[in-house]
This record gives sequence, C-alpha cells and structure tokens, in this order.
Amino acid sequence: MNLKELIYKTRSYRRFNELHHIDQKILESLIDLARLSASGGNRQPLKFMIFNTPEECARIFPYLQWASYLAEWPGPDKGERPSGYIMILGDKSVTEMFGVDHGIAAQSIMLGATEAGLGGCMIQSIKREELRNEIGLPDKYEILLILALGKPVENVIVEEIKDNDVKYWRDNNRNHHVPKRSLKDLIIKL
Amino acid sequence: MNLKELIYKTRSYRRFNELHHIDQKILESLIDLARLSASGGNRQPLKFMIFNTPEECARIFPYLQWASYLAEWPGPDKGERPSGYIMILGDKSVTEMFGVDHGIAAQSIMLGATEAGLGGCMIQSIKREELRNEIGLPDKYEILLILALGKPVENVIVEEIKDNDVKYWRDNNRNHHVPKRSLKDLIIKL
Repeated sequence: MNLKELIYKTRSYRRFNELHHIDQKILESLIDLARLSASGGNRQPLKFMIFNTPEECARIFPYLQWASYLAEWPGPDKGERPSGYIMILGDKSVTEMFGVDHGIAAQSIMLGATEAGLGGCMIQSIKREELRNEIGLPDKYEILLILALGKPVENVIVEEIKDNDVKYWRDNNRNHHVPKRSLKDLIIKL
Repeated sequence: MNLKELIYKTRSYRRFNELHHIDQKILESLIDLARLSASGGNRQPLKFMIFNTPEECARIFPYLQWASYLAEWPGPDKGERPSGYIMILGDKSVTEMFGVDHGIAAQSIMLGATEAGLGGCMIQSIKREELRNEIGLPDKYEILLILALGKPVENVIVEEIKDNDVKYWRDNNRNHHVPKRSLKDLIIKL
C-alpha cells in the first residue's frame, strides 16, 4: 500500500466491532510511530496513555463527544464502541507550548492503525476535567487529544463538496459520507 | 516501504542540493495527501501555496529561522537551500480555529515527500508579518507553517536521549544527531 492509498483509507471511523481486542503491543507500536515523528524544537513533550480492556474503555467513553454534525446520533451504541484508546497528553513539565506536535503524532498513529487493519477517530471534544478526575490524572499533564480505535464496521465514502457544505452525513444504509474540498480550491495563487 | 520505515526516514533535513528542481505536480500531489487527511469538524480551513522556482525560493528564505540549537549555524548556505516550499495557511473566512489541522497536514506532506525521494523541515519560526508584506498575502490568511523541501544532502542519525537533553547536534563530519526519548518514557501508567 503506498502512502496515498494509506491516507485514503485512513478515514474517521466511529462504529466498530467492540468485541475486537486490540493488543497492547499494537498500541505501543503505534505510539512508537509518534515517538519517531517530528516535534517542535525536538522537545518531545507528549506522553501517551493506553486503554484497551473493556473496563478501561467503558471508563473513557462517557467523556467523549461524537460527530457533532449528526445531531440525532449520540455516539456509537454498545457493541459498536471503540475497543482501544490512546490518550495524547502534553507534559507541562517539559513545555507549556505543544504547538502542533499532537497533530503530527495523531496522524502517524492513525496511519499506523490503518496499516494494522484498524481505524478510528481523533477526538478533541472531551469533558477534560471530569475525565481527569475519573482517572486521577496529575495536573502536570494536559489532555490534548484522544484517539478512539477499533475494528471499523462502517463504510466511509469521500465525495466532492457541494455548495461549500462541509457537513458529513449518513445515508439510509448507514454509509457515512464525507465531503472534501477539491485540490484546486486549496491551492492559492497570488 | 512500510509506514515505520517511512516515518523513520522522515527526519528533519536542513541541507539540500539546491539545484534539484521539484516539479509542480509533485508538490500538488503532496498537498492532495493533506487534502485527504483528517480535519477538525471536517471544516478543511487550510489553504496552501507552492514556491518552487529559484526566484520564488529566494523570496521566502530570508523570513525563515533555522535550527535554533545550532547557535553558530545561520541556516543553509547558498547551494544547500531548499528548492521548494509549501506554505500552509489558515483561511480565517472558514474558521479562526485551526486546531491541529496543520500538524496533521504537515505530517502527511512530509511523509509523502520522503516517499517521493525528497526531504525537508517543518518551520514554525517565521517572520510572519514581513513575509506577508513581501508576498502580498491578504489578511484573511494566517501563516501557520512553512514546509521547506528539497533533495537532502545531510545524514541524520536518531539516537537515544542522554541526561534528558533534547538538543540536536552536529559532529565533525556534519552528521546531524537527534536524541529521541525512549518509548517506555512516553507511556504513562497511573
């Protein structure tokens, strides 16, 4: 699989086979991809937490907000929830400026997940303080992103944007459609 | 090349064969990788500018700051400068919140550059207002990152961090050494 195919397959998935266990070693290998990725000033301020048992995943799930454009969908039902999470933390004892390190790291991890036959979603809408209390996270760590992972059971279709409307949507067969801007609209010439 | 090899090869390079021309089509294909990557709320607020002629590259270069840990090195000499740039802009008419979209996009582009036999460096230290004036960039675009690209002529060596010192350094043979934290130091258990 070349990079373009890998990136094309790395869609945001939100429904999974919850029974699919994700091995700790796989999650560690994904974090290793983030470890080897660029970091502003090489400061490497990111830390990572892994959650991959049903009990751990059930603790994380209530603090995540899903798919804001799907107003009538509160998030994945039982049985279709993620079976693993990687939480990306900023270690404020290293720096308070994380720049886009977590974006770089998240992309490396999500591409690795696709290569490993998994999929998932980068989640920024997190009830951060409640989750911090739930897991007893020390103040020196900032919760930057949570990557929800699993074995996807949904079909995601990339399509051309119409009328500048970026909202993804689901059809009657529960296919998930994602409008993307065209390349020519992204490249600016002055 | 699997993803781990690709990521391992995607180091930050700062010295290039400046005579190596980077075709416009290659740069567009890299931006297409960013286009197909995740975007917060699928808003896709990023825009991109390409610079790949010697004249264009000479206009950009003075506004970039290079390798802050190499105090005695002002940046690449003539002949070793980048032969292409992709400037990542945030379009404020779409949103003023770019989150980590540009980190995600930059990682896709830099991985694609490696696959295409190129290399480069994500640069955040930019004299933004002077550069805006130089190129006449409208106010609605925010300069987020500049990706300097070229055919690398330097050897970059990843090594284990010692004494928590993240500063990269050059040896007498101009090899560039980059200390990376170990995986076990990045994974937090509570």
